Amino acid sequence: MEALKAVAHEVIRRCHVLAECTEEPGHITRTFLSAPMRDVHAHVRGWMESAGLKVRLDAAGNIRGAKGTGPRIMIASHLDTVPHAGAFDGILGVMMGIALAQQSDGASIEVVGFSEEEGVRFGIPFIGSRALVGDPVMDCQVLDAIRTFGLDPSQLPQAAIADEVQAYLEFHIEQGPVLEEENLALGVVRSIVGQSRYEVTFHGKASHAGTTPMNRRRDALSVAAQWIRSVECVAHETPGLVATVGRLQVQPGAANVIPGLVRATLDVRHENDGVRTKAVDAMLLGTTYEKWLEEPAVGMHRDMVDALSKAVRDAGHEVHEMVSGAGHDAMILARKVPSAILFLRSPGGISHHPDETVLPEDVEAALAVGLRFLENWRPA
Amino acid sequence: MEALKAVAHEVIRRCHVLAECTEEPGHITRTFLSAPMRDVHAHVRGWMESAGLKVRLDAAGNIRGAKGTGPRIMIASHLDTVPHAGAFDGILGVMMGIALAQQSDGASIEVVGFSEEEGVRFGIPFIGSRALVGDPVMDCQVLDAIRTFGLDPSQLPQAAIADEVQAYLEFHIEQGPVLEEENLALGVVRSIVGQSRYEVTFHGKASHAGTTPMNRRRDALSVAAQWIRSVECVAHETPGLVATVGRLQVQPGAANVIPGLVRATLDVRHENDGVRTKAVDAMLLGTTYEKWLEEPAVGMHRDMVDALSKAVRDAGHEVHEMVSGAGHDAMILARKVPSAILFLRSPGGISHHPDETVLPEDVEAALAVGLRFLENWRPA
Repeated sequence: MEALKAVAHEVIRRCHVLAECTEEPGHITRTFLSAPMRDVHAHVRGWMESAGLKVRLDAAGNIRGAKGTGPRIMIASHLDTVPHAGAFDGILGVMMGIALAQQSDGASIEVVGFSEEEGVRFGIPFIGSRALVGDPVMDCQVLDAIRTFGLDPSQLPQAAIADEVQAYLEFHIEQGPVLEEENLALGVVRSIVGQSRYEVTFHGKASHAGTTPMNRRRDALSVAAQWIRSVECVAHETPGLVATVGRLQVQPGAANVIPGLVRATLDVRHENDGVRTKAVDAMLLGTTYEKWLEEPAVGMHRDMVDALSKAVRDAGHEVHEMVSGAGHDAMILARKVPSAILFLRSPGGISHHPDETVLPEDVEAALAVGLRFLENWRPA
Repeated sequence: MEALKAVAHEVIRRCHVLAECTEEPGHITRTFLSAPMRDVHAHVRGWMESAGLKVRLDAAGNIRGAKGTGPRIMIASHLDTVPHAGAFDGILGVMMGIALAQQSDGASIEVVGFSEEEGVRFGIPFIGSRALVGDPVMDCQVLDAIRTFGLDPSQLPQAAIADEVQAYLEFHIEQGPVLEEENLALGVVRSIVGQSRYEVTFHGKASHAGTTPMNRRRDALSVAAQWIRSVECVAHETPGLVATVGRLQVQPGAANVIPGLVRATLDVRHENDGVRTKAVDAMLLGTTYEKWLEEPAVGMHRDMVDALSKAVRDAGHEVHEMVSGAGHDAMILARKVPSAILFLRSPGGISHHPDETVLPEDVEAALAVGLRFLENWRPA
């Protein structure tokens, strides 16, 4: 296993090399088809070719390297980042794919570095992976950006995968604290949570903080505070549910004026759509709200999950099935092909932050699992 | 009383005339020594002269009209406004003073329109009245504004009142809902509340709204929400106390990120300083905070309050002693001379808003009270 240890270090080194390709010096910021993505492609192309992959850039800006014949396993993740990101979210999965392609001689593999997953540049996520499932984003700004990058949007249909892809595997950092807490290197994702996002508005009456007695107030923030506590209460009572009030805007927002209006966001996620919508209904009861997003949960493919679990066990690790609380490209690919995700422990649970990291021994473990999966996976 | 009814309508008309003098067309916005204040002075000078007052502009930009000899009663309020103000806050008191000077033949009266009370332009309130008590604001920006307006800051000491002023009377809209609720036209202010203002900071840990289980969160907004409820609880348990969380800043403030930091303002007011500080101590217990302001309550002069109450009763109105939850120029003048305030009902409790208004019959009642007070007031 000394060899895989070296490969793991090379995977991490490559993530750091790509971190230098940024729109903002001193930070890692790389949005959809931004200038530094050209440097990323140059690096990735070189590494892919060294791994024996035949490289192309599709019309959505995804860099793709394939080798072998017959039914293919696709290993992929995204190459874009949030602003002021860490080096591993997305990137690690692509570097893992290239390393596995290099290590597995006989396999028929396609490695993809998706152009976009985070939704930062145009507020539209999954631009890369949607092109692969025949649902390309047709937004004018996105098409313009594709043209500006030197690609041809009319070729987007050719980016879609055909029947040759029989399975989709994604390696990704957990971006949460669960694996670290459980003292585990790896987690097998069973499903990706469904998500509800709402804006809830509380109407009160702005008035003078000094001249309005307590019993004459209609303080919107007071009502909102009570609501925040009740949201938390519902969340704690519902196993596996997470609910977050992440943004709160208070108007007029002066120290000496009683708040007349509060707008709050509500983000609720659960693996079971029925559980989620029931909780959301309870949270929204009696409030004024606007729906922003309602996305069903996406189950990973059971055969894939089982095969991945077996590979984890065969590689000498404890199997921990878990739910992904964040969206990933795998939830798009799952529309077309059996898909699965292997999570790598996130030290400190930190992600979307410069301190985001991954342990070399966890990368080594994930590589070992990946190789076993590639050896043994046979579609049903 | 037909005559006073006409005077009351003229007082209100004049408030509307001054409302036309604004920095922002379509709104009433008039800060310290801003350009429209020149037009205000031109109008006020004319009305003062018609009332037989001898007019001067002091070095703090206060317009002052005096008549009569011997111990003087000063009737005053401010001529500046908050942004997007109503027509009556401050202004009404100056117009009342001019009307009373005109109506009361023999009295020795000085009417003052203070240049500044709201603290909008430089964040410094009471620039006008502080000059009268020999505590002029010596801030460089303020002195520059005085020079730019064509006045001479070296003359500020001459703005201070001497022993000839034996009493200070201010008419002001209540800016709150109490008199309306009690179905009363007028209120006699017994004291002006003391005030504490703090910024309270809640530190949590920003993390991913999807990947961080509820029991692993350090949600700063959740803690802040609980605190807001506890502030309200303390306030409700303390008779006469008002407490307000008027501003709340949530960081990073994204729908899908657990809040890592919340900054909240706390404004607490009460007529009794001991009650206030005890409540504030309870509210700040266990929090991280920064003191912004700590101002003791200011009692109005007992003889003045009694004389004003008698005038209210003699004019046929019910006497309602009350506390002012807002600061007024009278709290500055109280440092030097016996001072009192007569509140006029604020319909809807509305102030610092274009809808701010006053009832003609309440102005008529206040005029009648003022005339009686002027006839009968004798210093102890």
